[in-house]
Amino acid sequence: MRVNRLRLDVAYDGTSFSGWAAQSGRRTVQGVIEAALETVLRLDSVRLTCAGRTDAGVHARGQVCHCDVPGEPDPLWLRRRLVGALPADVRVPTVAAAPDGFDARFSALWRRYSYGICDEPGSMDPLQRHRVLAWRRPLDVAEMNSACRQLLGEHDFAAYCRRRQGASTVRHLRRLSWTRLSDGMLEAQVVADAFCHSMVRALVGAAVAVGEGRLSSVVPLEVLNAGVRDPRITVVAPHGLTLEEVGYPAHD
Amino acid sequence: MRVNRLRLDVAYDGTSFSGWAAQSGRRTVQGVIEAALETVLRLDSVRLTCAGRTDAGVHARGQVCHCDVPGEPDPLWLRRRLVGALPADVRVPTVAAAPDGFDARFSALWRRYSYGICDEPGSMDPLQRHRVLAWRRPLDVAEMNSACRQLLGEHDFAAYCRRRQGASTVRHLRRLSWTRLSDGMLEAQVVADAFCHSMVRALVGAAVAVGEGRLSSVVPLEVLNAGVRDPRITVVAPHGLTLEEVGYPAHD
Repeated sequence: MRVNRLRLDVAYDGTSFSGWAAQSGRRTVQGVIEAALETVLRLDSVRLTCAGRTDAGVHARGQVCHCDVPGEPDPLWLRRRLVGALPADVRVPTVAAAPDGFDARFSALWRRYSYGICDEPGSMDPLQRHRVLAWRRPLDVAEMNSACRQLLGEHDFAAYCRRRQGASTVRHLRRLSWTRLSDGMLEAQVVADAFCHSMVRALVGAAVAVGEGRLSSVVPLEVLNAGVRDPRITVVAPHGLTLEEVGYPAHD
Repeated sequence: MRVNRLRLDVAYDGTSFSGWAAQSGRRTVQGVIEAALETVLRLDSVRLTCAGRTDAGVHARGQVCHCDVPGEPDPLWLRRRLVGALPADVRVPTVAAAPDGFDARFSALWRRYSYGICDEPGSMDPLQRHRVLAWRRPLDVAEMNSACRQLLGEHDFAAYCRRRQGASTVRHLRRLSWTRLSDGMLEAQVVADAFCHSMVRALVGAAVAVGEGRLSSVVPLEVLNAGVRDPRITVVAPHGLTLEEVGYPAHD
């Protein structure tokens, strides 16, 4: 039987997941969606490949993944069946036949993450507390943006990555900007071709150290150039981080 | 010792509370804040009066309450101490000395609530699921607004209230309007001088019945005029409801 590739767009509340990647004995997003697909499609095994393997506690509104399935299940039917087969903390808003040659991971041109911070913990909206980091000291957005702008472009981000043997840490950081929203919350938008492990959270850690005045706005670039992890820069908590969007080539 | 009145602005995630009003053996918003105030102020008993006694599961971003305390605790100091003394699902973003004659309940001129609905449950943002109602059928916003406009003004809302012996059910409904937000979600804004028990949720139930085409847009007004509860109109779930704001006279 012919095998067809499906593209699934996925959203999840990462709070109760041990991250994306399937691990035996752990509740993971990949594991939960694969199990739902196996049930609905009556298959022994479905394997998902995603654009961004998010860590435990990280959320997604625009995760993208693909899987290969025998036959040609109707995407609308499958989408409808998944609503009931999935728990409420993970949704699959779109199922579609993938374009020729599509690969959720390798076709992706860029990933966009957001990171939310409330720097006035007494004013944190309790309804947002699962996706926003509470920070005890007030943060200076202009200083944070000044520091972050210097990191844009293609660099070796080894100083901001958890190193994996043999893997490159060169990335193209296209955007890293902070905005104070109308409700007083701070939000970062971070875009790169791809991210190394814990890279967004280390970059946010650097920005926060500058924002609270602990580091000068030139230090994050100095750390980047030094090329080794710096103890002054902490990796912030995962629950402020959301994978918002993945970009692919337009198919014309 | 002179007793002073404090005004507290309060926000909470209603998910894990048995509503606002203190009940022995239940976790309530009033009970939790009173206990925190008693601890911080080293008082035997503090009693809070609020603008809107929300039901179990209902959230608030702009609840207002007052309490009378001996002495003159510094509002900024008290606000800061409450951050640590309160659980993460309730915040007190503002503490202030109340103006002369202020009463959180009786001085209030109006209350504004929002109600969130996702009428495409497969697309529900999992991060919003605790504060948005999932509805299985698509809703027609124009029809809902057409029905809701007819209910504006001062009327006896007995048909939309859980009756209490001897209490008036005449209310002035100033606003009841629906908007489809950019993320596809539906949001109602509902403003009245005050609301009877379960009134917002019954009005939303009427609007939803019209929106899905089960009732014509003239029925909610007919029900209002009949003056008795109608089995065609259900009271929707509490978790979509948020007390957003309470209006008071300007103090000049």
